[in-house]
Amino acid sequence: MTHNRRDFLKKAGLLAASGFVFTGTDGFNQPGNTISNNHKGSKKMELTYQEYELQLKHVFTIAKNSRTTTPDMQVRIHYNGYTGYGEAAMPPYYPENPESAKKFYEQLDLAQFKDPFEMEKILDYVDHVAPGNNFAKASIDIALHDLVGKLMGYPWYQIWGYDKTKTPSTSFTIGIDEPKTVKKKTREADRFNVLKVKLGGGNDKEMIHSVRSVAPEKPLYVDVNGGWKDKHEALDMIHWLKEKGIVFVEQPMPKDQTDDIAWLTENSPLPTIADESIQRISSVMDAYKVYDGINIKLMKCTGMREAHKMLNLARSLGMKVLMGCMVASSCSVTAAAQLSPAIDWADLDGNLLISNDPYEGVKVVDGKLILPERPGIGIRKIRD
Amino acid sequence: MTHNRRDFLKKAGLLAASGFVFTGTDGFNQPGNTISNNHKGSKKMELTYQEYELQLKHVFTIAKNSRTTTPDMQVRIHYNGYTGYGEAAMPPYYPENPESAKKFYEQLDLAQFKDPFEMEKILDYVDHVAPGNNFAKASIDIALHDLVGKLMGYPWYQIWGYDKTKTPSTSFTIGIDEPKTVKKKTREADRFNVLKVKLGGGNDKEMIHSVRSVAPEKPLYVDVNGGWKDKHEALDMIHWLKEKGIVFVEQPMPKDQTDDIAWLTENSPLPTIADESIQRISSVMDAYKVYDGINIKLMKCTGMREAHKMLNLARSLGMKVLMGCMVASSCSVTAAAQLSPAIDWADLDGNLLISNDPYEGVKVVDGKLILPERPGIGIRKIRD
Repeated sequence: MTHNRRDFLKKAGLLAASGFVFTGTDGFNQPGNTISNNHKGSKKMELTYQEYELQLKHVFTIAKNSRTTTPDMQVRIHYNGYTGYGEAAMPPYYPENPESAKKFYEQLDLAQFKDPFEMEKILDYVDHVAPGNNFAKASIDIALHDLVGKLMGYPWYQIWGYDKTKTPSTSFTIGIDEPKTVKKKTREADRFNVLKVKLGGGNDKEMIHSVRSVAPEKPLYVDVNGGWKDKHEALDMIHWLKEKGIVFVEQPMPKDQTDDIAWLTENSPLPTIADESIQRISSVMDAYKVYDGINIKLMKCTGMREAHKMLNLARSLGMKVLMGCMVASSCSVTAAAQLSPAIDWADLDGNLLISNDPYEGVKVVDGKLILPERPGIGIRKIRD
Repeated sequence: MTHNRRDFLKKAGLLAASGFVFTGTDGFNQPGNTISNNHKGSKKMELTYQEYELQLKHVFTIAKNSRTTTPDMQVRIHYNGYTGYGEAAMPPYYPENPESAKKFYEQLDLAQFKDPFEMEKILDYVDHVAPGNNFAKASIDIALHDLVGKLMGYPWYQIWGYDKTKTPSTSFTIGIDEPKTVKKKTREADRFNVLKVKLGGGNDKEMIHSVRSVAPEKPLYVDVNGGWKDKHEALDMIHWLKEKGIVFVEQPMPKDQTDDIAWLTENSPLPTIADESIQRISSVMDAYKVYDGINIKLMKCTGMREAHKMLNLARSLGMKVLMGCMVASSCSVTAAAQLSPAIDWADLDGNLLISNDPYEGVKVVDGKLILPERPGIGIRKIRD
């Protein structure tokens, strides 16, 4: 990138940030959801948040349940005329929800910190305010990254030294369903280079046959969500899947069957990837020599800073890295995509599943993730 | 840090960088040591280098040898009116020297990269130009970090999100010598809060008695440089050292005696730290469950980017982190100090041992490392 473009982006960042200064007219600044009064140009960090219901385009089914909406919290950190955006996307099968997030936000006092750049100290404080609350913590982490990136005038992929042309294609997820619906969804996913097929619902071969009848050559990822219980049957199925052009198998068995999974990984002709087994960085060492790789999700690991550390840890251990996401807005999906030039596989389609995305951010062009050049996490607000 | 100070620093960074633009009057731009012609404002990265002999204040003795100078290469990367400074400090007991470094630099073509921010790609290229050459690679990595930090307008401790008030004290090293000299050096090191005493020369107890006669209460680190050969004698000595107020024991036995060291670590009342066992990030996993911690040195690990990854890896593994350095100028020592808010112990005294430091950078105030606020690695040239 030339320096003129950088200068342009820096200015654009300043303009974009000040354009988003929180005025109280966008529904955020209502009694009860503002932690403290925000003043334009204030040198104190101030947190605001708003509940937001993500509308799904299709009914979404995995091994455990189906749904049509996802509860979501949109947060902002305001500092000196800049605004950092964050998000906690909260599918109902996780322990957090908007009420628990609000309770968490209300305990936070970000105004005590004079310098947003002291991210290690600030996020360490956030982490110790209460145990758990990983999704709520991630929303703060994302907003802080967005703020600091805007203050620096650079997007995070660049601050981390990554080459934006190295972003992978993202897979698009095909949920468990009837053959007719699976075929229809596979057809609709024509613009994606790779699909992730959910298995573990008792109709695995039917699912693959349905997808393959529409997309005979496309690389496929498989996510079992712990749905296989017997390691020998699992291995037989993986051998069958290898013949069908599957690239890797995510969470083949329940996470507590560690010995079975280690045996499966040892014998599997396809890489095994840990998902339900992976939460924060401490779980990566537990997955070492049990799985071939890990799925990093910002919501589960408390955000971008820990995700970046997990990525480097997995690399050091010789493990593969997939990044996934919840059904979410472009806020947290674009934040995750900032790390994507350094990963093996991306499953960052959560924003594509909703019909009311408040932001524009990472794009999918010819199936590949394309990072915006905006500073911070790189999003732009397009609706309230 | 307030935003006004940041704005000031950004401007200062720009001024400092353009003030250092390479003009050919500072001895660098001579035939044979300029890779390509530098033009002020050029958007191509250009590398220049100069051999520099570091003069030691005192004769320096460790288990293996003594010396009064250290060969050194000072490098610069020029880009668009900015200059990034780097250094390879090359003690004679390592395989690299100025000739090998020059040969390495002559193989590099940094002009092929349009954007210095693509550090992962650039440093990956540098790493694959030739095997080994870790010191020369570190000098390029440091210069690139200095350049990119100046382009961003921020010091690296801030880009990495660290709290600069968390820098540790640095130890000052007392080499193996006669009691009289050891006592004199210990007296001269009065301003340091902690000393690192070199052992393994056959006079260990005499060394400690000499230091303790002058500094009866000061915390001491001990560096054996692999000088102990028998694990039982080593353990006896460590028990004795614990009584004398020693904090940790570095490289107690030769690095190839892995089983003995693991046994020693298991039984030792003091933490054991790997030094000779640690080179690049791949060696950290080898040290896991063998030592309690690692010593990271920029020269050995190819620079700041890999050092940052090693620090995060060691933390993930629950290991302690010491950072050390060669006898070196303030260039590479200040670069290392950028990571120091996140480490346990610092042995960053290499610049204090020389009488002809070309730069001003990290300071020692009341024994503690004080990071400069300048962007990049934070140094300022004070002599040619």
